[in-house]
Amino acid sequence: MRVDGPVTVIAGGVGAARMLAALLEVIPPEQVTAVANVGDDLELHGLHISPDLDTITYTLAGQINPETGWGLVNESWQAMDTLGRYGGVDWFNLGDRDLGTHLYRTHRLGQGATLSQVTAEITRAWKLGISLLPATDDRLRTMVTLAEGSEAGCEVTFQEYFVQRRHSVAVSGVRFDGADRARPGPGVLDAIGQATRVVIAPSNPLVSIDPVLAVPGIRAALEAVRSNTVAVSPIVAGAALKGPADRLLRELGHEATVVGVARLYAPLAARLVIDEADANLADQVNAEGITAVVAPTIMKQPGVAAALARVVLE
Amino acid sequence: MRVDGPVTVIAGGVGAARMLAALLEVIPPEQVTAVANVGDDLELHGLHISPDLDTITYTLAGQINPETGWGLVNESWQAMDTLGRYGGVDWFNLGDRDLGTHLYRTHRLGQGATLSQVTAEITRAWKLGISLLPATDDRLRTMVTLAEGSEAGCEVTFQEYFVQRRHSVAVSGVRFDGADRARPGPGVLDAIGQATRVVIAPSNPLVSIDPVLAVPGIRAALEAVRSNTVAVSPIVAGAALKGPADRLLRELGHEATVVGVARLYAPLAARLVIDEADANLADQVNAEGITAVVAPTIMKQPGVAAALARVVLE
Repeated sequence: MRVDGPVTVIAGGVGAARMLAALLEVIPPEQVTAVANVGDDLELHGLHISPDLDTITYTLAGQINPETGWGLVNESWQAMDTLGRYGGVDWFNLGDRDLGTHLYRTHRLGQGATLSQVTAEITRAWKLGISLLPATDDRLRTMVTLAEGSEAGCEVTFQEYFVQRRHSVAVSGVRFDGADRARPGPGVLDAIGQATRVVIAPSNPLVSIDPVLAVPGIRAALEAVRSNTVAVSPIVAGAALKGPADRLLRELGHEATVVGVARLYAPLAARLVIDEADANLADQVNAEGITAVVAPTIMKQPGVAAALARVVLE
Repeated sequence: MRVDGPVTVIAGGVGAARMLAALLEVIPPEQVTAVANVGDDLELHGLHISPDLDTITYTLAGQINPETGWGLVNESWQAMDTLGRYGGVDWFNLGDRDLGTHLYRTHRLGQGATLSQVTAEITRAWKLGISLLPATDDRLRTMVTLAEGSEAGCEVTFQEYFVQRRHSVAVSGVRFDGADRARPGPGVLDAIGQATRVVIAPSNPLVSIDPVLAVPGIRAALEAVRSNTVAVSPIVAGAALKGPADRLLRELGHEATVVGVARLYAPLAARLVIDEADANLADQVNAEGITAVVAPTIMKQPGVAAALARVVLE
C-alpha cells in the first residue's frame, strides 16, 4: 500500500537527509515536508549557520560532500586558510562554496526575513521540490552540559560539543535554550496535522529530534496524529550509525538499544522500524507500546533506501 | 637629505598603498605609520569589511591582486558563485581568500575588540612591520548624494556609489556620517604630532583623505605640523590616475587640477608634489601658499616609486 497524501518528516541532519532522499525515490517531492531541527544553529564570524537545514538541502540537491556527509561537494577552503593565518576560530570548517549560503542567509535575516522565508528561497534555488520548514523561526539553541574533567558542569553550545570536542566528552545534560518562548514555524503544525504519514527520521533522538519536540505545540501535534506516525530507529545493534546517539542515550539515563528508542517514541509513534540486526528485540519493543517493524535500515547499502521508504509509507 | 625619524602617511586605499610601498623601498617599516580611511567600510552579509585597510595590508604583504588593485592574488570566487545561485547581493565581490579576513575581523569585533586591535592582529599576521592605524575605531561612513536621473537627491553609502554604480554617476555632496561623534583611533594623534615627516598620500582628497580629516582633532593635529607635511597630488594633467577624483572635484565645485588640490591642502601641507606633466602649473600652486615640488609621480613606472619616496622625505 502506498501513501498518496502528504508525508511529513521530523528531521535532524544526516540521517534525516538520507531518509528524505529515500522517500523521494518512491514519492514525488511535492508530497514531502521536512520539519527540521534548528537547535544546532550557530552564529560564527557574524554569520548565521544552520547545519541541519543545509545538510538536508545539499543532500537532496545531490551536492553533499560524500566524504564528510556535510558541506558541499567540490569544496575549497581558501577562506579557512586565511582565517588560519590570523589564528582565528577554525574548529568549525566553512568551505568556500558553503560560505555563500551563510552569507546569503545572514544578509536576508539582517533585512528582516524569517529563517523560514530564507530557507524557502535557498531550497527553491537548489530546486528541491520538497517543503523544508525550520521547526521554529525563533531562536532555539541546544546546550550541552559536559561531565568530564576540568569542564565538568560547564554548559556549551551544541557545536562546541559536537564539532569542537568531536562529541568525545561525556555529557550530563541537554537543554534547549529559548524553547519556552519559541513558536512553531509557519506551516509546521499544519504539516504535522494534515499529513497522511508522519515519519520520525533516524536522527539522534536527544539532540536532533528533541529540540523539534521542545517547541511548544509540536509534541502535542505529534501526539494527536500518533496512529499515522512511524519512527525509524537511529540505533542499530546498540550503536549509532553515525554520531554520538548511543553514548548520549547511555549518559543521559536511557538504554542505547531499539528498546530505549521505543520508550522515547511510544507516545509519538504507532510503529518503530528496527533493523534486522535487532529482530530479537522486537517483542521488547512491542512491550513498550509501539509496534516493531523489522526491516533493513542501513540506507548506504544499495536498494535499502527505497525499500525502507516503502516500509515507512506502508 | 633623508628623514631619520618617524614618517606618518595619511592614507586612502590604492594610491596610499603604492605610496607606502614606495617609502618602504627607502626606509625601514618600523619608521612608518599609516593613518587610514575607514569611511569606505561597510557591513555586508553580516561581515565588517574595511576596504582601505585591506588594500594597504595586501599590497604591503605583496599579496594584492595585480589585475584589480584590490583583493588578494590567487583568488577564487566559490562563495560568490553560491551567492549568485540564490540571487544574493553580488555587486561587491568577495574572494574566498579575502573572506577569511572579513570573517576574522567580524568575529573579533563581535568579541568586543576594537578595529585598531583587529587591524594590528591582521597586519602582524602578514608581517607588515608598519603601524596601520584606522583613523577612528568609531563608526564613520562616507555617504554620497547622487545628482543624476531618478536617483538625484538620494544618499547612498560610499560603496554603493563606488562599486555598485562604478562611480559613473554624478554627485552633488559627500557627508561623513558619525564623524561628529568619532574619536581619533589610539596612536593617531601621536603619530601625526611626533612624525618627522607627514605625507598626505595621492589618494582621493574628497572621499579618502577628507573622511580622515573629518574625525575631530585630526585636521587640527595636521595643521599644527604643517611645516613637516608634504602632499602628493592624485591629479596628474587634470585626471585621476585611478578612480573618480577628477570627476568628484569638478562636481563638488573644485578645480580638477593640481591647483585645485593645492587649494585643498594648503592649510595642511607646506609642499605639494606635482607630476612633471603639471610643471607649467607650479607657479599657480605656489600662489595658493603651498610650495610646488615637480617630480615624476606615476609609481607604476619602474624606479619612480623609490625616487618619489626620496622626494617626499627630502
